[in-house]
Amino acid sequence: MQFETALNAVRIVLVEPQHPGNIGAAARAMKAMGLSDLALVAPAVFPHADATARAAGADDLLANAAVHETLEAAVADCRLVLGTSARSRRLPWPLLDPRTAAERAVETAAAGPVAIVFGRERSGLTNAELDRCDAHLQIPCNPDFSSLNLAAAVQVASYELRLAAGAAVDEPDEYDPPATAAELEGFYRHLEEVMTAAGFLDPEQPKWLMRRLRRLFARAAPESAEINILRGLLKAVDPRRR
Amino acid sequence: MQFETALNAVRIVLVEPQHPGNIGAAARAMKAMGLSDLALVAPAVFPHADATARAAGADDLLANAAVHETLEAAVADCRLVLGTSARSRRLPWPLLDPRTAAERAVETAAAGPVAIVFGRERSGLTNAELDRCDAHLQIPCNPDFSSLNLAAAVQVASYELRLAAGAAVDEPDEYDPPATAAELEGFYRHLEEVMTAAGFLDPEQPKWLMRRLRRLFARAAPESAEINILRGLLKAVDPRRR
Repeated sequence: MQFETALNAVRIVLVEPQHPGNIGAAARAMKAMGLSDLALVAPAVFPHADATARAAGADDLLANAAVHETLEAAVADCRLVLGTSARSRRLPWPLLDPRTAAERAVETAAAGPVAIVFGRERSGLTNAELDRCDAHLQIPCNPDFSSLNLAAAVQVASYELRLAAGAAVDEPDEYDPPATAAELEGFYRHLEEVMTAAGFLDPEQPKWLMRRLRRLFARAAPESAEINILRGLLKAVDPRRR
Repeated sequence: MQFETALNAVRIVLVEPQHPGNIGAAARAMKAMGLSDLALVAPAVFPHADATARAAGADDLLANAAVHETLEAAVADCRLVLGTSARSRRLPWPLLDPRTAAERAVETAAAGPVAIVFGRERSGLTNAELDRCDAHLQIPCNPDFSSLNLAAAVQVASYELRLAAGAAVDEPDEYDPPATAAELEGFYRHLEEVMTAAGFLDPEQPKWLMRRLRRLFARAAPESAEINILRGLLKAVDPRRR
């Protein structure tokens, strides 16, 4: 299944969001992670200028957002419904961390729509709503301050969905090939000569210092061009030149 | 290292945040994930009622936030400085995804403070600021809409830090702690002085060479003892000494 197809099949459902700004911020978080399907259940106010402002360019998600009267209607066609929960409940339910939840959501997305459901800002989802979910998703939190903003919770879930769908970080521009062993050895010989000429090598322990410096440069794995720069520098500071 | 200790050793640095609401939202995201050390570099407005409102109970982080005039001052004592970047840059730099960055931050936190640096809402970090970082952190984004809210980016990084701190296993480290940002900057200044005195810096393009050398040494992540060796070497070959 294609990367975009999987992300487009995951629906973010916000149940009774009270602040339109949070709807906009959630839409922005979704779009930045490549999600597109936003559904709202009985929002207090929507549409609203605060939602548009906080969406910061994710207006298309707001314009396409489905508004439902009940959670049941919002998830009717979904093959998997995951409900976010901050509490541990009396009645145990399958409980997933965001990473596992995202992996399961992306797997199921091949078969049909998947919903991740977020509750009200202050009170979350009711027990009756959580009972409608196939599993619960809990974002790990500081037990002394588990107050996660609604859009921040959507951000974490969307981020894990993007990773689960196979997103990789932009590859950095290619590094040049590392220097050859011969180039490196030429550099170390040159370095040792200049250090000796400058009186910097301890004649009692010459090997110790070279080993320290070899270890340092080995960690950097210099490119050929960098070895050339370093040798140019050694030549410029060589006391024998003066 | 204890879980809380690791999270307390990670500093979130916001460079020139323009909207105080974002500072508050970032503080809330941090506290919900168990982080506590917030530093601000030249915020446009702070303190401010919007910051307090969006912090939603994370006021203690705002009250304790250090305000600095420069990034250099904010990270001077840090053993690892990671800068967030949305762009891939012309000159490649060590680039980490949030998960790898968090693991590395938590590992290094055993040795001393670690900074994760976030740039301005619209323009991010400058190239000069990114050059000061040991590595760059990129949050994977929709290439067509990479507009991540500042607090949302802090949320993702803090979430990964919490996971990394929970997963971290105490392992004896055979390396000495990496040098602090202040030690590294002292070395780079010294290097630039000696290269200038030796006539090695191209007066037309002095910045290009320094960036190449910073990139090389950033990959090696020198220890404090290695910085001392390199500075001893610079002193020994300094043409001004003769």
